[in-house]
Amino acid sequence: MEYIFSDKLASMKPSAIREIFKSLADPTIISFAAGNPSPLSFPAEEFGALAADIFANHSTAALQYGTTEGYTPLIGEVDKRLESKFNIKGDGDQTIITTGGQQGIELACKALCNEGDTVVCENPSFIGALNAFRSCGCETVGVPLSDDGINTDELEKTLEANPKAKLLYLIPTFHNPAGITSTLENRKQVYEIALRHKVIIIEDNPYGELRFAGEDVPTIKSIDTEGIVLYCSSFSKILSAGMRVGFIRGPREVIQKMVIAKQVEDVHTNNFFQMLCYRFITEYDLDAHIEKIRELYRNKCSLMLDCLDKNLPACIKYTRPEGGLFIWCTLPDELDAKEFVQRALVKKVAVVPGATFNPDQNAPSQSFRLNYSTPSDEAIIRGVEALGEVAREMIK
Amino acid sequence: MEYIFSDKLASMKPSAIREIFKSLADPTIISFAAGNPSPLSFPAEEFGALAADIFANHSTAALQYGTTEGYTPLIGEVDKRLESKFNIKGDGDQTIITTGGQQGIELACKALCNEGDTVVCENPSFIGALNAFRSCGCETVGVPLSDDGINTDELEKTLEANPKAKLLYLIPTFHNPAGITSTLENRKQVYEIALRHKVIIIEDNPYGELRFAGEDVPTIKSIDTEGIVLYCSSFSKILSAGMRVGFIRGPREVIQKMVIAKQVEDVHTNNFFQMLCYRFITEYDLDAHIEKIRELYRNKCSLMLDCLDKNLPACIKYTRPEGGLFIWCTLPDELDAKEFVQRALVKKVAVVPGATFNPDQNAPSQSFRLNYSTPSDEAIIRGVEALGEVAREMIK
Repeated sequence: MEYIFSDKLASMKPSAIREIFKSLADPTIISFAAGNPSPLSFPAEEFGALAADIFANHSTAALQYGTTEGYTPLIGEVDKRLESKFNIKGDGDQTIITTGGQQGIELACKALCNEGDTVVCENPSFIGALNAFRSCGCETVGVPLSDDGINTDELEKTLEANPKAKLLYLIPTFHNPAGITSTLENRKQVYEIALRHKVIIIEDNPYGELRFAGEDVPTIKSIDTEGIVLYCSSFSKILSAGMRVGFIRGPREVIQKMVIAKQVEDVHTNNFFQMLCYRFITEYDLDAHIEKIRELYRNKCSLMLDCLDKNLPACIKYTRPEGGLFIWCTLPDELDAKEFVQRALVKKVAVVPGATFNPDQNAPSQSFRLNYSTPSDEAIIRGVEALGEVAREMIK
Repeated sequence: MEYIFSDKLASMKPSAIREIFKSLADPTIISFAAGNPSPLSFPAEEFGALAADIFANHSTAALQYGTTEGYTPLIGEVDKRLESKFNIKGDGDQTIITTGGQQGIELACKALCNEGDTVVCENPSFIGALNAFRSCGCETVGVPLSDDGINTDELEKTLEANPKAKLLYLIPTFHNPAGITSTLENRKQVYEIALRHKVIIIEDNPYGELRFAGEDVPTIKSIDTEGIVLYCSSFSKILSAGMRVGFIRGPREVIQKMVIAKQVEDVHTNNFFQMLCYRFITEYDLDAHIEKIRELYRNKCSLMLDCLDKNLPACIKYTRPEGGLFIWCTLPDELDAKEFVQRALVKKVAVVPGATFNPDQNAPSQSFRLNYSTPSDEAIIRGVEALGEVAREMIK
């Protein structure tokens, strides 16, 4: 039998990150390629205690079908936290629980875009989101990311040039892969531009709780008076990635359409873990737990930056994140980025090539992404030394 | 802001079943409307013991990101069981874990169908599948279901009349909602017809383990030599529906495309429950557990059939299932089915109107679905008495 695939999926390949992950089966390789949270961030002991109670005393609710919107008490806690930590409120909005933050992004695109529509993204952007938009048959168009956020002049031009642009996808805080946080001034400008062009913003904020330096910047959602921002996030980086519990909040009318789309994808998100999240939030100190994660990443990021300062030649630039999981390195034009990544792998250090994150799938990139949350301190020191060796070998 | 939705979702409404569920908030209503497994089928105690060990000794694997394909040891156990219980084997195939059986159906359509394509279904068919196909922008076309399975003459005609038919969706065993099981002869004919028309079959078998009378009929997948059958099922009806763990098996090339589609939907299925399923299967007696569920449903189905025999006038026909969760009742043409369902609700008995399950969304139906797995014995007795009263009131 010769199989004929749908147009939107026929050209899609497994992501380059997955291919790199295969090389990670070699335990001698130091991986800066992952996007995983540190296992030290998982509250396994507390989850164990709560699980014992749920299976003993609330098993029917945990193991039976639930509602597509999610476990109501958890939604209540999410809404409380969005208001207290991110100044996100508003009666016209609704929050639903999604199977990881990823599902919220995909459902938004499915509800709002036809095949052939355009999703405008920062360049670089999160590969999982880019592929979600592509899987809906949408074109992804990138707008350069500067130190203070997406380039607003270029954003304006891009939206003018793309009348089929329906969504603007942004990771304003501790950007993946770029590690930068946009300024409030940038956020206000971006919001005004999107509103003028009647484009819905997806504000993806999975790392928002992971600030380890500097001051919080208000979310775009918190300045949204016209109902054009969908805000999505998850518990993946603060409780567990493997449980797949996230959420999305936005105008009720849009969220209701996403509920229909979610129902046909997976009916609802795992009930037991929705209850577990609710119980953890209400019975333990989530803020104290997050503070421990921040401390851990503060130290790891600081160590990696120190190593980069010490080992990399000045011609290689990199971001200095105030939170999140990633540092973004950019090579000077005279160094071949593909060769750099290849040579690093020969020296047993895996990084993710920047082209992976380019909304334009055929464009090259002079950058690569480094993750500091997963590797050990020793791996960070040795791995960055190896990257320095590669740079010096290529420059001479 | 005025929101414009995607063409494929703009016309979709929440399913009628969900609307009926709202009326179930009234605790005085007897519900035959659910599709839930009995809570007695959840092995809560065993899950509690396994959970304690996983959180104590294997928490990183359970709480960290996993692979999109699923937890490898669980896939191994699924494949073993598919071979031993359903005679499904073959080197060209691959199995992946999905977030409930629902996701397998939706991913198959996403991978294989363009908007405007046709999915041929039994009439009636499972509303969750019908809506999944519609959410992909596909048209659902129904072929009448007879006592021995889908009407093969009509299937032939329908495929000839619909050159854009890409998928044939079937629930051959303990059909939802019709409760019937197709014969081996019917399955062979259906397979030949699909092969001749180069149409991929989705064989959905969520109830396959729940036979409480009669003899097993070979799965269509087990007679598939040409790689045209995707077989999907789940643990929802034998371990827990709320955990959302299912699987789909089919030709590797097709499954690989579905992996890409799954990755952008939810990255992977909840890791902890994949491990829990694996541990339950390998450390407890799954067959003995299922035998208890069969015994329970055998008794409940038998009770409901006895009550129907006693209370309903002979002009109302109903199926006598050998497994699964549902009985399908059909009213004579002279009785108004909508009025029947309404009158039943006035008497505090909820059933699902047959039109819900019609692939043709505008077609009426003389039938309704009864579920016997969820209500108590007393509720079955009282509820069917009330249905008998409604029938007698309408006939006189």
